[in-house]
Amino acid sequence: MTDVTRVLVVGTGAIGSFYGAILARAGARVEVVSRSEHQQMRQHGVRVDSNKLGDLSFRPAAVYADTAEVTDPPDLLLLCVKVLDDLDRAALIRPAVGPGTAIVLIENGIEIEPPLVEAFPDNPLVSCLAFVAASRVGPAHTEHKAYGRLVIGSYPNGVNTAAKRLSGLLEQGGINAPLAENLVTERWRKAVWNAAFNPLSVIGGGATTKDLLGSENEQRLGRILMEEVCQVAAAAGHPMPQDLPEKSIVNTLKMPPYHNSMALDYLNGRDMEVEAILGNVIREARRLDVDVPHLETVYGAIKILQRTLAARARQD
Amino acid sequence: MTDVTRVLVVGTGAIGSFYGAILARAGARVEVVSRSEHQQMRQHGVRVDSNKLGDLSFRPAAVYADTAEVTDPPDLLLLCVKVLDDLDRAALIRPAVGPGTAIVLIENGIEIEPPLVEAFPDNPLVSCLAFVAASRVGPAHTEHKAYGRLVIGSYPNGVNTAAKRLSGLLEQGGINAPLAENLVTERWRKAVWNAAFNPLSVIGGGATTKDLLGSENEQRLGRILMEEVCQVAAAAGHPMPQDLPEKSIVNTLKMPPYHNSMALDYLNGRDMEVEAILGNVIREARRLDVDVPHLETVYGAIKILQRTLAARARQD
Repeated sequence: MTDVTRVLVVGTGAIGSFYGAILARAGARVEVVSRSEHQQMRQHGVRVDSNKLGDLSFRPAAVYADTAEVTDPPDLLLLCVKVLDDLDRAALIRPAVGPGTAIVLIENGIEIEPPLVEAFPDNPLVSCLAFVAASRVGPAHTEHKAYGRLVIGSYPNGVNTAAKRLSGLLEQGGINAPLAENLVTERWRKAVWNAAFNPLSVIGGGATTKDLLGSENEQRLGRILMEEVCQVAAAAGHPMPQDLPEKSIVNTLKMPPYHNSMALDYLNGRDMEVEAILGNVIREARRLDVDVPHLETVYGAIKILQRTLAARARQD
Repeated sequence: MTDVTRVLVVGTGAIGSFYGAILARAGARVEVVSRSEHQQMRQHGVRVDSNKLGDLSFRPAAVYADTAEVTDPPDLLLLCVKVLDDLDRAALIRPAVGPGTAIVLIENGIEIEPPLVEAFPDNPLVSCLAFVAASRVGPAHTEHKAYGRLVIGSYPNGVNTAAKRLSGLLEQGGINAPLAENLVTERWRKAVWNAAFNPLSVIGGGATTKDLLGSENEQRLGRILMEEVCQVAAAAGHPMPQDLPEKSIVNTLKMPPYHNSMALDYLNGRDMEVEAILGNVIREARRLDVDVPHLETVYGAIKILQRTLAARARQD
C-alpha cells in the first residue's frame, strides 16, 4: 500500500457518496464508478451537503462509467450497490480488484458476503453496517441528514488490517467508525428491525413508522416478527438480548415518523432488497428448522406484490 | 303478505341491482333505496345487462333517496350494502322495517348477522351468499358477467317461510337459488377462500389470482391461510372437508386470472370489507383460542395499509 490510501467507490448512491466524501475529507485518494452519472460527476464532482458536517462535496481523482475502465486497482474497493437478485456483484467489481485490494461491503442484509468470498478467496473482505440518514436529492447530489456511524469488521469475524485502516480514515474524516469483532452478529442485530419492518411497511402501502406501529395489534405483530428474527439469529449462533424487540419498538415510537429505506424504494418505484433483507433470513430459518410463520407470511405477500408490480410495469 | 311480493332493495350496487332485477323479472314489486343515484334511477330505471340472461333492466315501483322516505314497509327487505365499520346497518334500515318485514342479507363476511338479530329480534332474518360475477359499469348501470347462484337460509339455521319465498321467486326469475339448512356453515365455506385470499391480494398490491398463486412458495402460503380458516371454522362448529384448501387452489388456478372483489375495491380506491371478511375470523379465532399466525400477519398488514391510505388521503 502507498502512503495515501487509494479508494474506489463502486455505486454512488447516497451511501457511496457520503462515505466517499468522508474518506476524501480524511485525505484518501477517492475514485468513483458511476454508471449513470459519470458525466455529471466529471464536470461538477460529487455534491454532498450535511446538516452536521457542512459541505462535504468532493472532486473524485477519477470518475469511471464502468469498472472495466479501471487500470490501477485500489487499496480499498467500497461496494455500495443494492443487493438485488439480477445483479452479480462479483462480476461487477472483478475488473477493478487487484491482488492487494480489500473488498469493503457497505450494504444491507444477511448472508450477503458468501458470493464475494467465493469469487475472491484471496482478497481481504471487510463487511460494514451503515447507520446513517442520507438520501439522494438530485443527480450527483446527496443530502446527509443525521447519524453516520459505520460499524466495521472482517468476515466472518475478527478485524483485519484493511478494516482498521478504513476505520482510522473515517474517524479522521469526522465520523464514528467502531470496529466489531463479530460483524455477522451485528448484521443480525440490524436485521431484527429491518427484516421485520422494512417489508411489512411495503405491504402496508409504504407506511411510515407511525402507521406501522399505529395500534396495539400492529405493535404486537411487530414484536412477534422481531422475536422470530431473534430465534433464527440464535439458531445461527448469534443470540440477541431478550429485550431487543421491545426496546426497538419503544425507540422507534420515540422518533419522529419516517419511511425506512425499503418503503422509500417502494414509493419511488425502485428495486427493493427483499432477498437480502428478508429472503435470506427465511432461508436461514428453513435451513436451521426454525418456525417463522409471521415472517413467512410477510415474505409471501411481498413476493406477490413484486410480481404484481412487474406485471403492471409490463402493461404500461 | 299480499299476492305480489313487495321487495325493497337497500343498496343498489352490482349485487342489489342484479338480484332486484331478477325479482322484478319474477313479478315482484321492487322498490329501491339509492342514496347517490336516485335521480338517475327515477328517470331511467335500473340498467342491468347480462351476457347470460339478456337485458334485465327494470323500472322500480318506487325509488327512494333514503329509507326514511319509505312509508309502506316491504315483505322482503334486501340489504345489499357493504359491511363497514362506520356504517350502522340496523339504523340504516330501521325506518323501512315493519312488523312483517323479513330482513334479507346479501352480504359478505362472517358473523355479520348478530347486529341485525339484536336490532330486530322479532323479524324473520334471511341470510344469503351470492356467487355472482357482476360489476358496476356506470351510474345505475350493472353488467352481469357470469354465475348468479344465491344460497339462502335462515339465521342461525333452518329455512323459514321468507327464505322459501325468496328462493321461489329467484328460481322463477331464472337463477339458481338453493336453500341451505346451515347457512352459517356455508358462510364459513366461502370464508375459507375469501378470508385467506382477499386481503392477501390487497397487500400484494391488488394482485390477480395468477400473481397471488404465482409460485410454489405463495401457493403454500395460500394453502396454510386456508387451513387456518378451516381450523377456526371447525372450532366454531363448522368443520370443512379436509381437501377444501387444496381443491380451492387447483380450481382457482384453472380459472382465467381475475381480481377478487376486495382487490377491485382497493384498486378503485373504495372502502374494503376487512373486518367482515377477515377481522371477524380473527376475533373468532381469539375467542376460541385457535392459533392463526399467518392470518394474524395478513390482518396486521392490511390494517397498516388502511392507516397508510387514510393518512395519504388526509394529505391530498
